[in-house]
Amino acid sequence: MIKIGIYGYGNLGRGVEAAVYNNPDMELVAVFTRRNPDNVKIQTPNVKVYNTNEVETFKDKIDVMILCGGSATDLPTQTPALAKMFNVVDSFDTHAKIYEHYQNVDKEAKASNKIGVISVGWDPGMFSLNRAIMNSVLPCGNDYTFWGRGVSQGHSDAIRRIEGVIDARQYTCPIDSALEAVRSGVNPELSTRQKHTRECYVVVEDPSMEERVAKEIKEMPNYFADYDTTVNFISLEELKKNHNGIPHGGFVIRTGKTGMNLETNHVIEYSLKLESNPEFTGSVLAAYARAAYNLNKKGESGCRTVFDIAPRDISLLPYDEMLKHTL
Amino acid sequence: MIKIGIYGYGNLGRGVEAAVYNNPDMELVAVFTRRNPDNVKIQTPNVKVYNTNEVETFKDKIDVMILCGGSATDLPTQTPALAKMFNVVDSFDTHAKIYEHYQNVDKEAKASNKIGVISVGWDPGMFSLNRAIMNSVLPCGNDYTFWGRGVSQGHSDAIRRIEGVIDARQYTCPIDSALEAVRSGVNPELSTRQKHTRECYVVVEDPSMEERVAKEIKEMPNYFADYDTTVNFISLEELKKNHNGIPHGGFVIRTGKTGMNLETNHVIEYSLKLESNPEFTGSVLAAYARAAYNLNKKGESGCRTVFDIAPRDISLLPYDEMLKHTL
Repeated sequence: MIKIGIYGYGNLGRGVEAAVYNNPDMELVAVFTRRNPDNVKIQTPNVKVYNTNEVETFKDKIDVMILCGGSATDLPTQTPALAKMFNVVDSFDTHAKIYEHYQNVDKEAKASNKIGVISVGWDPGMFSLNRAIMNSVLPCGNDYTFWGRGVSQGHSDAIRRIEGVIDARQYTCPIDSALEAVRSGVNPELSTRQKHTRECYVVVEDPSMEERVAKEIKEMPNYFADYDTTVNFISLEELKKNHNGIPHGGFVIRTGKTGMNLETNHVIEYSLKLESNPEFTGSVLAAYARAAYNLNKKGESGCRTVFDIAPRDISLLPYDEMLKHTL
Repeated sequence: MIKIGIYGYGNLGRGVEAAVYNNPDMELVAVFTRRNPDNVKIQTPNVKVYNTNEVETFKDKIDVMILCGGSATDLPTQTPALAKMFNVVDSFDTHAKIYEHYQNVDKEAKASNKIGVISVGWDPGMFSLNRAIMNSVLPCGNDYTFWGRGVSQGHSDAIRRIEGVIDARQYTCPIDSALEAVRSGVNPELSTRQKHTRECYVVVEDPSMEERVAKEIKEMPNYFADYDTTVNFISLEELKKNHNGIPHGGFVIRTGKTGMNLETNHVIEYSLKLESNPEFTGSVLAAYARAAYNLNKKGESGCRTVFDIAPRDISLLPYDEMLKHTL
């Protein structure tokens, strides 16, 4: 059994917990929180919650620590720090800072002879993996990524900060006609507005605020101004009833050409339709925790990404079974 | 530059040739044929064709030999034999015999300190890779594979063997309603007949034969009897004009559940739409030739499949670039 620790217990931590519970070769040993452990209820029977300041005492009791903090302030320091003691896996997703994060984790993991797998999830993660493979098998072509239909936490938060807004949910939606144009192989140049729309469900304190709030949302720079945005005002009850989930997903498409004169067209498409973003991300983290364990057992150390890891190392199946039944 | 040899020059050999031509880090050194080399015209300027009996003289001139023979009789002997001299890549696709083939290639490649990558293409190959990854990240779920719309060479040949048939083309077509049922997550149990139809375009010597030929096709055991088959009689001109290509493709879908009580649904889908089956397969072989070269340079030897190979080793991009731009 691979002994797993979870570091940080929000939506993602709960998703990882369920994934570990459903993987027959894994066992949850402990959950770590910055809060008072007595106030944190977890889902797994007979597993205890500890304060993060107790983590060092688990140095030899945990094979892989799965980090479930945020990319903005938690993971840049937590992942390198915990790599001094554990094999670690995180879902660091600030694309612009991945290279720096890689180097920080690599340094610590090499020093401790541990493995640190970073930026695991679906984007970065499964989408990156597929982009890399698609590009390798079709070197002449174009990549497209569409996100959604799914809840953007950042955009929902931005709406909540507007005066008079009680709660809000924002869905990022790919535009079907753009998807179809890409699939047709015409290699369209698509502007931000042509790829996605933004669909908002907003609860305000008073109906008289609706016009102002809608205007503020639609004109918000970076978040909404570059998109066709629709704003729907609903009641808090309706929000809770119909917009309670955290679905997400998206599409990675590569259109490429082969032949001596690049006269032949191909389309490769990978898509995800996820009812729960954190549960799926948690499942991917669990699979790569297995890889961290396997690689470290082979004597490897240092930082890894989805690009370094062969399917064999994330698989539950013995290799012989994979050859006989999956190939 | 990775020095490539092509062993066998039919449709797949031509596909590999074009792929090598379009990969900036590869160079075609020689093409080997069992035919008289003088009668084989290839597409790449300034590259010569040799008889297969000359292959030993290229022992130190070729980094990776890409085998383009058939799975029935060529590859089972050719791949192990050539692994004594070269890093090799093949597209062996007889699923039931892959395990045996793996062991034969592994033995020879280990003895010669070379790498042999087997069963590379799209199924087995890209589809297998995706099945393995999907299963790892969603361990609780169901897999579905659909093929087409695409030309089945084996089924086209079977029709051609019927008396009075001049030429024929058979398309395997996935049934849309079955695809939709799978995507909806209801986990349908689908019979052979419910997953695919078979669409035949047939040229006969005389219209009076049509009724008999259609009946013989539709009742042919293994090939057609278990499917809803449509037979269209057309002229040789129409066949040549409208059915000259070798398109193919298909879908791998995994529907899986997460959550402590497996209450959350997800759908992962990978699909290919290929205008040319041999050109795409050739492109995949070229990418894995890069992996054979990279792994052997690291000192590795033995047999490998898509399950053993990390995206990094098939990629054209330096790892730093992948971290910065693909992740």
